[in-house]
Amino acid sequence: MKIAIINGPNLNLLGTREPEIYGSLTFEQYLANLKSNFPHVEFFYFQSNVEGELINEIQNCGFGFDGIILNPAGYTHTSVALGDAIAAIDTPVVEVHISNVAAREDFRKISHVSAKCAGTIAGLGLQGYELALEYFIRKS
Amino acid sequence: MKIAIINGPNLNLLGTREPEIYGSLTFEQYLANLKSNFPHVEFFYFQSNVEGELINEIQNCGFGFDGIILNPAGYTHTSVALGDAIAAIDTPVVEVHISNVAAREDFRKISHVSAKCAGTIAGLGLQGYELALEYFIRKS
Amino acid sequence: MKIAIINGPNLNLLGTREPEIYGSLTFEQYLANLKSNFPHVEFFYFQSNVEGELINEIQNCGFGFDGIILNPAGYTHTSVALGDAIAAIDTPVVEVHISNVAAREDFRKISHVSAKCAGTIAGLGLQGYELALEYFIRKS
Amino acid sequence: MKIAIINGPNLNLLGTREPEIYGSLTFEQYLANLKSNFPHVEFFYFQSNVEGELINEIQNCGFGFDGIILNPAGYTHTSVALGDAIAAIDTPVVEVHISNVAAREDFRKISHVSAKCAGTIAGLGLQGYELALEYFIRKS
Amino acid sequence: MKIAIINGPNLNLLGTREPEIYGSLTFEQYLANLKSNFPHVEFFYFQSNVEGELINEIQNCGFGFDGIILNPAGYTHTSVALGDAIAAIDTPVVEVHISNVAAREDFRKISHVSAKCAGTIAGLGLQGYELALEYFIRKS
Amino acid sequence: MKIAIINGPNLNLLGTREPEIYGSLTFEQYLANLKSNFPHVEFFYFQSNVEGELINEIQNCGFGFDGIILNPAGYTHTSVALGDAIAAIDTPVVEVHISNVAAREDFRKISHVSAKCAGTIAGLGLQGYELALEYFIRKS
Amino acid sequence: MKIAIINGPNLNLLGTREPEIYGSLTFEQYLANLKSNFPHVEFFYFQSNVEGELINEIQNCGFGFDGIILNPAGYTHTSVALGDAIAAIDTPVVEVHISNVAAREDFRKISHVSAKCAGTIAGLGLQGYELALEYFIRKS
Amino acid sequence: MKIAIINGPNLNLLGTREPEIYGSLTFEQYLANLKSNFPHVEFFYFQSNVEGELINEIQNCGFGFDGIILNPAGYTHTSVALGDAIAAIDTPVVEVHISNVAAREDFRKISHVSAKCAGTIAGLGLQGYELALEYFIRKS
Amino acid sequence: MKIAIINGPNLNLLGTREPEIYGSLTFEQYLANLKSNFPHVEFFYFQSNVEGELINEIQNCGFGFDGIILNPAGYTHTSVALGDAIAAIDTPVVEVHISNVAAREDFRKISHVSAKCAGTIAGLGLQGYELALEYFIRKS
Amino acid sequence: MKIAIINGPNLNLLGTREPEIYGSLTFEQYLANLKSNFPHVEFFYFQSNVEGELINEIQNCGFGFDGIILNPAGYTHTSVALGDAIAAIDTPVVEVHISNVAAREDFRKISHVSAKCAGTIAGLGLQGYELALEYFIRKS
Amino acid sequence: MKIAIINGPNLNLLGTREPEIYGSLTFEQYLANLKSNFPHVEFFYFQSNVEGELINEIQNCGFGFDGIILNPAGYTHTSVALGDAIAAIDTPVVEVHISNVAAREDFRKISHVSAKCAGTIAGLGLQGYELALEYFIRKS
Amino acid sequence: MKIAIINGPNLNLLGTREPEIYGSLTFEQYLANLKSNFPHVEFFYFQSNVEGELINEIQNCGFGFDGIILNPAGYTHTSVALGDAIAAIDTPVVEVHISNVAAREDFRKISHVSAKCAGTIAGLGLQGYELALEYFIRKS
Repeated sequence: MKIAIINGPNLNLLGTREPEIYGSLTFEQYLANLKSNFPHVEFFYFQSNVEGELINEIQNCGFGFDGIILNPAGYTHTSVALGDAIAAIDTPVVEVHISNVAAREDFRKISHVSAKCAGTIAGLGLQGYELALEYFIRKS
Repeated sequence: MKIAIINGPNLNLLGTREPEIYGSLTFEQYLANLKSNFPHVEFFYFQSNVEGELINEIQNCGFGFDGIILNPAGYTHTSVALGDAIAAIDTPVVEVHISNVAAREDFRKISHVSAKCAGTIAGLGLQGYELALEYFIRKS
Repeated sequence: MKIAIINGPNLNLLGTREPEIYGSLTFEQYLANLKSNFPHVEFFYFQSNVEGELINEIQNCGFGFDGIILNPAGYTHTSVALGDAIAAIDTPVVEVHISNVAAREDFRKISHVSAKCAGTIAGLGLQGYELALEYFIRKS
Repeated sequence: MKIAIINGPNLNLLGTREPEIYGSLTFEQYLANLKSNFPHVEFFYFQSNVEGELINEIQNCGFGFDGIILNPAGYTHTSVALGDAIAAIDTPVVEVHISNVAAREDFRKISHVSAKCAGTIAGLGLQGYELALEYFIRKS
Repeated sequence: MKIAIINGPNLNLLGTREPEIYGSLTFEQYLANLKSNFPHVEFFYFQSNVEGELINEIQNCGFGFDGIILNPAGYTHTSVALGDAIAAIDTPVVEVHISNVAAREDFRKISHVSAKCAGTIAGLGLQGYELALEYFIRKS
Repeated sequence: MKIAIINGPNLNLLGTREPEIYGSLTFEQYLANLKSNFPHVEFFYFQSNVEGELINEIQNCGFGFDGIILNPAGYTHTSVALGDAIAAIDTPVVEVHISNVAAREDFRKISHVSAKCAGTIAGLGLQGYELALEYFIRKS
Repeated sequence: MKIAIINGPNLNLLGTREPEIYGSLTFEQYLANLKSNFPHVEFFYFQSNVEGELINEIQNCGFGFDGIILNPAGYTHTSVALGDAIAAIDTPVVEVHISNVAAREDFRKISHVSAKCAGTIAGLGLQGYELALEYFIRKS
Repeated sequence: MKIAIINGPNLNLLGTREPEIYGSLTFEQYLANLKSNFPHVEFFYFQSNVEGELINEIQNCGFGFDGIILNPAGYTHTSVALGDAIAAIDTPVVEVHISNVAAREDFRKISHVSAKCAGTIAGLGLQGYELALEYFIRKS
Repeated sequence: MKIAIINGPNLNLLGTREPEIYGSLTFEQYLANLKSNFPHVEFFYFQSNVEGELINEIQNCGFGFDGIILNPAGYTHTSVALGDAIAAIDTPVVEVHISNVAAREDFRKISHVSAKCAGTIAGLGLQGYELALEYFIRKS
Repeated sequence: MKIAIINGPNLNLLGTREPEIYGSLTFEQYLANLKSNFPHVEFFYFQSNVEGELINEIQNCGFGFDGIILNPAGYTHTSVALGDAIAAIDTPVVEVHISNVAAREDFRKISHVSAKCAGTIAGLGLQGYELALEYFIRKS
Repeated sequence: MKIAIINGPNLNLLGTREPEIYGSLTFEQYLANLKSNFPHVEFFYFQSNVEGELINEIQNCGFGFDGIILNPAGYTHTSVALGDAIAAIDTPVVEVHISNVAAREDFRKISHVSAKCAGTIAGLGLQGYELALEYFIRKS
Repeated sequence: MKIAIINGPNLNLLGTREPEIYGSLTFEQYLANLKSNFPHVEFFYFQSNVEGELINEIQNCGFGFDGIILNPAGYTHTSVALGDAIAAIDTPVVEVHISNVAAREDFRKISHVSAKCAGTIAGLGLQGYELALEYFIRKS
């Protein structure tokens, strides 16, 4: 099983940024745990603050992967191009948000990404990534 | 571990209603599987088409349960009272939607429930319920 | 021929409430006339002020009836769940409003029900019910 | 009894245009049936694609007729002037739409005509015209 | 003097729910005080989480009572049907809110109830109920 | 001095239609008075219910006249094309409304015509026409 | 006990203006009654049509008074500065409206004042002032 | 005949401010001409930049004058209180704007004053004042 | 090859109206050039200021032509009926605008026509017509 | 160099009001410092809670001063008249806000003043005034 | 003649992605044809999924080229920065869309690019590029 | 003292692009002046047209610098991700705009950046940068 995890802008600060909200684990540490818990899954990991580089990798993982776990972060609310990339590929995408976006600012209520994904997991912390992974494993 | 599953309006038709979208499994059949897969979890199940009865049960399970898995269905978009109930209780609530509501009609983009829940899982079919369950188990 | 007439909130006050607008006939009296005029039609009648009980009966009459004549009254403008129920059943539904809702308050311009029905008859008084009945008879 | 039927833009294409939606009967054929079924009704029929000519005929039939059955088609959503004409005359007007406008594009949710009519019948196909006719006959 | 107090959804949690906001008095305790302070007033009290049951009781108290004190809670913002019930009865209704709804979420700025009531008292805590009572007493 | 008076839809009913609002004078009678009071002005008068015919005459009077007094009636709020015609001609246009449009329905608050005219006179009854005439006379 | 009553624009016309709506009592007469009914309360009364003078007096009574009863009238809907003044002072403010503003024009649904006050009493006539007074007395 | 002319904010700069738009005549000069042209009219003139002072004078001239010619300038778009004052008085008010407000910024499309006046004259320069005067003279 | 060119309101003024924007060529002169450049194309040309006459000709050219080049001008933004006509015919329609409508007033951002056409060419001057023609030729 | 500092409503409370946000310095104390730091600048200072008095002073300083530093406070969001005054004068105006208005309530996102000023400084505390002063000094 | 073709996000998938909509030709194949058909045109071609790289190339081709043919794809609706780049350069830009964006999702109705371009060609498939090219050739 | 200046899209064209608006100084020339005027400040300068590269540098300067002066240009209005980056770092950010954005197109009224910054300086030309610098110096 081949799964890509693609993280959007500012998620490279995880563990540093507002640890009282996001926890003190970096994503790299979290990913190491994930890999050891799911030894049969082949992981590809990518993070970028550049919208277009996220599109590049979504396209690269769009044919031949079993699933993409995408946290588009701030681009969720503003990127039509990201949504178009998801619609253009074959690999199913599950959108993950660490915090509960519905409980934050009004402009976060608009999503250009969710409608193009298979589904969305939001507000369940870093667990959202492994639940998305479970989804791909169980449905395969 | 004590988990309540509360299903909102029209989910009693599951398995009958538009099976090409929602599958041919009734929720009762699905729940039986769930129970046998998670023998250590004590389940409480409730379904109603009446908004106020859903509020009653959210209140009843609101103190003393480890988690509520709530699919508010059509009331998601119109029930301030349901959101108020969730805000008033102690038990954390995970909102589940079988279909991807973000990909449906515009009026489904408004939610009075999501902001009051711990988080939301949408679009991942009946699996959404067990992923919500996994969330409560792992975080406990 | 089997026809259900389902009346929403406050329609139990018909004949009492604002008779200068709605007339002094109670719905029960009107229904008695209807039954004697259409002796070959089997009528089922239900009224409730509870949104969920209306959904219950729409589901109950949703398979096996030739038509449902539904006056959702105030729930027309606020009930996604009622619209979902109509979309989930097989029996065609004709929505009836006694008064001309288009000529009233702005919030009555929103309908969560009309798009899911076969059609709508509004503003033609109690006659709307028998015209809806005629529709089911003629198209059968 | 003197009834005018006034059809708005593109209804001259009925029977030709999208027959899978609107059926293969032309309005002239339908009208012939209607006349033979209601021999005691004196019919006046008019169709135009020109908004102002529709207003002219609404004015002409506005005093002395027992009813106008008006299908304003595309002008429903854009013609304040048509609404003004209806408000200015004595003859009651019933608005008819063949398709269920509530189930179509968002811009069809706005009506400048409905509030000025006695009532509206929508979505019940060509039957809408004869139900409107029944309304005028029964209430007379 | 005959006064009904009708409380909407989640007000049964008063005294338990967020005591730092709503105080630690249950409504039943408050009502007992009220009764002893106003011995000449005959009180009817009703609470429900079900919108339609609130409508039932508004209708029941709608003819023959001197006043209804209604706290529609979350239904304030979503219930056209509740507003219709108030418009349909003879008894004057005073709407009461314990907290200052104008200082809370944006969706609480919409009210389908206020325009149909005699007036509104908001933000003055449980005192709102007795001020509403004073209003009925003084104006009688 | 050469002045055109162009009246839009339903103004041919003036004197007949809602006389308690618009008075019992027909526009023809009013025009006769105007002509005798302003003997040195050459009048051209045109009324039509057809938007495009109004545009035709605005174009015809658009070069060589000293002023156009235009009552676009219902087309005020919906006709971009009428506004474009006024912008395309040389003759200055004064818009006149008999009633106070600002005090009527909300959809009458939108104007596609006013911004293209020299100015607007509204709500001053038939006097609006002679005040517009005075304007052209005094400024010439 | 020291209470300020501050009345906004046009309230100096009370008793003269639209007496069928507002009654024929002037506010001065009403205040005299109030004073004799509440002999232990020290009243300060101020009325102005000038927004800034109302702010001046709110500031003057903002430190050292037990309560301000404010009827901001037309400034309710347009004055951010008035709301800022209330937020800046120590004295609690109860907003009073004589008529039920929720039942009037749409622009009266916006309030820049309510969210900054302790609470609001609307629609209960002049009684609103004494109920606000009762509130300050009882809570003290 | 007794006519008040009340000018709102910044109109004291007339003749100085943007003379290429507003001309180089001060209002005082214009008024002198007006007085000499209409010797039988008794004029009262008032200008203020203070919203509340304009309300004061509208009230002062609101009973006993034959007409008020009001140019509310910038307060047109923001003053509910000014509109309330006009609604509260007996003297009819004609609103005058020197420039064509419909052709300016979007926020000038909102008026809280027009709906309460007898009518409006806009865009016809200083002539607007004398046309308003003519209106009062002719209708008297 | 049989191509119809249909021009909407005010395009008869081309060459006269605002020549600094639209050029000094009349459409008739332009059409003569077009005909001589495309001798194998059979042209039908129609211009009207009347919305309904444009619909008539769209219908007339709607079956049997190879393409319609339509410049709906001001009706672009207001005519649902024109859009319906295009949807009802077989001939593909290319919408042409001489100026760049996206760079003009906000109300020109709404189109009821574009979604029903094959495509749109805007802002490229009179060349837009021949580019549309090229499109029909190349794709045939 | 001649500079006016004009402060809007509630800024007279500076130093008293919410000192944890606005600091404990009164504006008079701050101004004294400013004067001693900029001995070559001639300062004019004015504060009022009355919108029209602010307009008066903007006009008074509008011709002959080198700059106006204006903190319109709550009138920023509601005063078209203030914006008009700034547009009508010659002296350039720099708008200053002590707090970051973009980070506060939504209604503070609307400004009727900013577009008419040379520029805006917001969120930099009392420093905003001296930065504005620096701007006038450096550009002179 | 020197022409740049700049393609935005996801257009690198052309020929692969949804071939039933976009055809099976890759853009590189299409470009080869274009080059052989227009041998006298010097082409520069660039595609990127990165918004800022598109801006870089628009700037690079912005001085010295005869035209830019730009398909901004998903950035059309969200990129103010792209629109600013086009406004800042000398080379005229024609915007091309392969599909008819007006017939797709609502969020595609907003464009931050069109108003800054010379014009737009949409919905005419890959032909749009050569029509844009023809435009630059003919107008040169 | 360590200050970063980060310039967004199209600001590399400064001095070339629309010099009549933005002046003929390049930012590099301006920066050289700034450095010589503030010899004790250590400057870091970065410009990019790529949103994500701006985020990268905001993160890089986000811990250890005394201040960031950010001109987000076109990304101001569309970049939630940029706002998130500012919220995630420790270094205070002052937003600078050379032109007065409030006086430009409507879409520039929305900012996703301002609320996350310490403050904003707009419309004061290149001086805005040195005023921001002064702010950091004085407050340190």
